[in-house]
Amino acid sequence: RSLRIGLIPGDGIGREVIPAGKKIIESLPSSLGLSFSFVDLDAGFDCFKRTGAALPDKTVETLKKECDGALFGAVRYAPHLPSNDPSNHHPTNTNPPQSSPSTKVAGYSSPIVAMRKSLSLYANVRPCKTVLSPTFPSPTKTPIDLVIVRENTEDLYVKEEKTYPDPSDPTGKAQIAEAIKRISSKASWRIADIAGQIALRRDKMRKASGAEVSHTKSGMVTITHKSNVLSQTDGLFRSTAREALSQPHFNALKIEEQIVDSMVYKLFLQPEYYDVIVAPNLYGDLLSDGSAALVGSLGLVPSANVGEGIIIGEPCHGSAPDIEGKGIANPIATIRSVGVMLEFMDLPEAAEVIYKAVDANIAEGRLVTPDLGGRATTEEVTNDIIRRM
Amino acid sequence: RSLRIGLIPGDGIGREVIPAGKKIIESLPSSLGLSFSFVDLDAGFDCFKRTGAALPDKTVETLKKECDGALFGAVRYAPHLPSNDPSNHHPTNTNPPQSSPSTKVAGYSSPIVAMRKSLSLYANVRPCKTVLSPTFPSPTKTPIDLVIVRENTEDLYVKEEKTYPDPSDPTGKAQIAEAIKRISSKASWRIADIAGQIALRRDKMRKASGAEVSHTKSGMVTITHKSNVLSQTDGLFRSTAREALSQPHFNALKIEEQIVDSMVYKLFLQPEYYDVIVAPNLYGDLLSDGSAALVGSLGLVPSANVGEGIIIGEPCHGSAPDIEGKGIANPIATIRSVGVMLEFMDLPEAAEVIYKAVDANIAEGRLVTPDLGGRATTEEVTNDIIRRM
Ligand SMILES: CC(C)[C@H](C(=O)O)[C@@H](O)C(=O)O
Ligand SMILES: CC(C)[C@H](C(=O)O)[C@@H](O)C(=O)O
Repeated sequence: RSLRIGLIPGDGIGREVIPAGKKIIESLPSSLGLSFSFVDLDAGFDCFKRTGAALPDKTVETLKKECDGALFGAVRYAPHLPSNDPSNHHPTNTNPPQSSPSTKVAGYSSPIVAMRKSLSLYANVRPCKTVLSPTFPSPTKTPIDLVIVRENTEDLYVKEEKTYPDPSDPTGKAQIAEAIKRISSKASWRIADIAGQIALRRDKMRKASGAEVSHTKSGMVTITHKSNVLSQTDGLFRSTAREALSQPHFNALKIEEQIVDSMVYKLFLQPEYYDVIVAPNLYGDLLSDGSAALVGSLGLVPSANVGEGIIIGEPCHGSAPDIEGKGIANPIATIRSVGVMLEFMDLPEAAEVIYKAVDANIAEGRLVTPDLGGRATTEEVTNDIIRRM
Repeated sequence: RSLRIGLIPGDGIGREVIPAGKKIIESLPSSLGLSFSFVDLDAGFDCFKRTGAALPDKTVETLKKECDGALFGAVRYAPHLPSNDPSNHHPTNTNPPQSSPSTKVAGYSSPIVAMRKSLSLYANVRPCKTVLSPTFPSPTKTPIDLVIVRENTEDLYVKEEKTYPDPSDPTGKAQIAEAIKRISSKASWRIADIAGQIALRRDKMRKASGAEVSHTKSGMVTITHKSNVLSQTDGLFRSTAREALSQPHFNALKIEEQIVDSMVYKLFLQPEYYDVIVAPNLYGDLLSDGSAALVGSLGLVPSANVGEGIIIGEPCHGSAPDIEGKGIANPIATIRSVGVMLEFMDLPEAAEVIYKAVDANIAEGRLVTPDLGGRATTEEVTNDIIRRM
């Protein structure tokens, strides 16, 4: 099988981790019978400065027409806002970075939301699994192994906003802004359905690997919403997801639901309970950052943007301006994203090869980057993982 | 000074903890020169079944006309939804309760949002402080002491929703629902301003008590938003809050901002860094549940609903149908809510008396409820705290 992969490094450490991802793909054992070709694609803040577009049409077109998969690194997003990127910072650092460069550049905003929409990447899949490491203690007592399945196209991310003068203010200075939160039964069904499929696949993989399966983990999907306040929008998400997950082929799954504020509470206190969590876009955004914290570093957490066509792997961290150019960015989030991308291309064996090599690298703890308590460079980590594949 | 306090027990364990709160108020040392009278008020699900209204007009009127403060217990909210109430469950319980009684009762929904709006309780203030207890280990390595200041009147809580057929579906079955997220500069200014005042007061109290003040904690407000996606609504919240907090009387404060997904990440990994966090309604809802998890139990976390008139203290937990009637509900969230209520009535000395007695009860750990690893009843805990006042 011959696969074409788009490479979109973006900004900052995106340019350091995407080459690592490419090397990993090139090093997959030939026994898998796969051959890969690559195409370099442009996006992000530097691209915007050079070309005037954060997401050039050519990038979207090439992804649509030529590529089976892609790796997206990271992009600077709104340069006047505080950095959204706590990755690659040791969690015990008590003085987290607060702002990215303050050059506000008119017209620029992160192309990531636009890319997800223009390619109909309707699901953002974010697996969070505790690493067993001698150098990096887990923040949670019990290991966790869960996936956030985040709806990726609607909710408040439709970005339909308006602003008008506040009629209650006679001076005319006060303002009111409104945004639309849109939830459709179509998108809710689709995301719940894929969450169910992921839960079934995880169960199969767990059983195949002979992993200990706790009684709560024979395949479970937790539907998250706030329908006690948003009875129509989140109510539609909830009832549609329930319906999708009551299809006969999901009979083996345990289906639960959890109001999103309680979900945050339980995610902190009993994260080991959860398997697959399905959520509308915004809650999914928050829950996946929360889950990343539970494994200790965004530098470890992969994701895949999944749609009807192309699958785009994407590390959960950002462009990390503070460590850019130092060659010490943790490549593991990207390398694992290669794995998740391959899983969704129906290549679970190839994904397993990568996951196992990453686990072995972390378990030894000799060649790991500073965020995991080591001194290795991005390249040394990548080569160590390749050696183990 | 003579104060009239409304008592709104509501449903479930609300009826067990509100009497505890009342007893605490009655036991305040006479040296404070305060006298209290009480009025019992109705609200909640049982009230709805009896009277047809979850929040009778009489309750609102009496609160408005007669009361300086009130204590609100807990109400059952949407009986067909899963319980939103993980309080009073030991955090190591791996099988959390999933649903409240399934009797769906048409027309009922929690009166709490309506109450906040009808009394213009524009701020929901939720202090979260680690307890030092021999029976109940802190979930965080470092003790935390932060306050979530949540806007309480707008955002998606305006509950303006509509549903229509999905035009892309020829069968006419698919639906789309929309909700409005509304943010005003007025409400954003007001909430940021009170957050600033709270930060100043906390700093003063810390200094007065001779507490060790870390370099990050000379009074700090962190503004939370998602303006990288919601540039108008959250953008308005952000810029207005920045403006409010740059008033000269806030000069001593450190003002930071944090995108909300990063905020969730950091709340898990570096919660000890934060002091006052100000947020729009929905993010505030999620962040306060997250913070409650960091102190280990919703049964410990108080809140106050603050407006221009009355102050309403309210434990953060819900009605806990599973332990209702057993007399083992932890009264501490309510007792601390009495403290927060008194603080906002400008009675910090009275509040201190209560906080110290609660801390002493927990520090000894002899008379604590099951959620804290003890065997005491609600009444025994309350009496022990009163003995220490
Ligand atoms: C950068 C931002 C627009 C994005 C999002 O909110 O989706 C990011 O937080 C993410 O989770 O990928
Ligand atoms: C019960 C619910 C409507 C409420 C809210 O969302 O505000 C609750 O979660 C809270 O935090 O007080």
